[in-house]
Amino acid sequence: MNGARLIGIGVGPGDPGLVTLNAIAALNEADVVAHFAKAGNASNARTIAACHFKDGVEELPLLYPVTTEIPKEDAAYRDSIRAFYDGAARAIASRLDQGQVVAVIAEGDPLFYGSYMHLHVRLSPRYPTEIVAGVTGMSGCWSAIGTPIAQGDDVFTVLPATLPEYELERRLADTDAAVVMKIGRHLAKVRRALDRAGRLDRAIYVERGTMTNAAVMPLVDKLDTIAPYFAMVLVPGWEGRP
Amino acid sequence: MNGARLIGIGVGPGDPGLVTLNAIAALNEADVVAHFAKAGNASNARTIAACHFKDGVEELPLLYPVTTEIPKEDAAYRDSIRAFYDGAARAIASRLDQGQVVAVIAEGDPLFYGSYMHLHVRLSPRYPTEIVAGVTGMSGCWSAIGTPIAQGDDVFTVLPATLPEYELERRLADTDAAVVMKIGRHLAKVRRALDRAGRLDRAIYVERGTMTNAAVMPLVDKLDTIAPYFAMVLVPGWEGRP
Repeated sequence: MNGARLIGIGVGPGDPGLVTLNAIAALNEADVVAHFAKAGNASNARTIAACHFKDGVEELPLLYPVTTEIPKEDAAYRDSIRAFYDGAARAIASRLDQGQVVAVIAEGDPLFYGSYMHLHVRLSPRYPTEIVAGVTGMSGCWSAIGTPIAQGDDVFTVLPATLPEYELERRLADTDAAVVMKIGRHLAKVRRALDRAGRLDRAIYVERGTMTNAAVMPLVDKLDTIAPYFAMVLVPGWEGRP
Repeated sequence: MNGARLIGIGVGPGDPGLVTLNAIAALNEADVVAHFAKAGNASNARTIAACHFKDGVEELPLLYPVTTEIPKEDAAYRDSIRAFYDGAARAIASRLDQGQVVAVIAEGDPLFYGSYMHLHVRLSPRYPTEIVAGVTGMSGCWSAIGTPIAQGDDVFTVLPATLPEYELERRLADTDAAVVMKIGRHLAKVRRALDRAGRLDRAIYVERGTMTNAAVMPLVDKLDTIAPYFAMVLVPGWEGRP
């Protein structure tokens, strides 16, 4: 039997075929598989990777007490989410203390804008920890639509749509390529910032990029301002040179 | 038999276990597997993925006529490399015209700073084309060392080390998280830029990140200025909140 080990596993952007061999091998070693979801919802990471869980594995759902109901700046949000991560880390630590191998599955890549890293900082100083890198959601999106994103000496910037409008505009005007993430209720603001930065004409709106029900269109053709939280906007940097 | 199809396949950052199921399935369909390398060198992508080539597959090595011998700004470099990509695209087109499935394997992700995209822009307007997203080299690096790179509302920036020193400094001071790529002969400049941007203390130097002979150290502890072309410097953005 293996000793206690925490494994943060990236399961990729959504297509179960974009799971790696190392992710499958790690799932095969795990005594416990933990996954994040909003209470009442299925875990996206679980949906992607469940076919690789070994028979009889213990599942440990980690259910966010809040997501977007309370503004992130609010102390109530911070207290609630911190208590949640502390509790999740304790639940995992109790399995590790029994010598179990605990896998935490994460959409995309575990250490790139993922909830897993809140567990990582709490547990990796105390337990042997391993990370299995994953294909990011943004790679999944630009691959699904066959759009080269950055090349050669391009500067590439990832911007959260939550930034103030003037910050988005300034940064979009100052980069060759960009991805704007977590569009959600910020779509109108992102469109204005791209327009004033002179980058709207090449921007591509992508919703559920690697799913069968993906929605992809030039952002100028998206006439409403309704977007899910995980939608993103791609601004390709590369013009086909040389 | 399948009809003609071009498939750009990301084979990940170096560890053969970071190849995806879709990459393996695509290699199994390919009549021809093309891979880039410097003349006289083995192809890194081939080294990663060769164990998944099907028996008797035709290999098509695409050998760069120049890499770093001529400055990129030089017209001789541009002419030579453009002629090379034109010739490589013709060689692949001739297989596609015979109805074959041609896979081009690429380290990391095919549409993120990869040579494959030079073929993509030449061929995808004319032939059915598919992309298999891959784990990027930078994801491989921060995962290998277990360092969370970006979280929440962080701005994340990828900078080529070839940028002028003042541009590196300005951009490193203006982002939460960064990766500086293609360090090579630019290490001393990158270190000065990080120092003046106030970011040197958290910078991590990574060489051959996902290989068994990886070299990882705080950049302040790397006392020489010798680095391979594909070395990178990580500047983690996330401070462990909340």
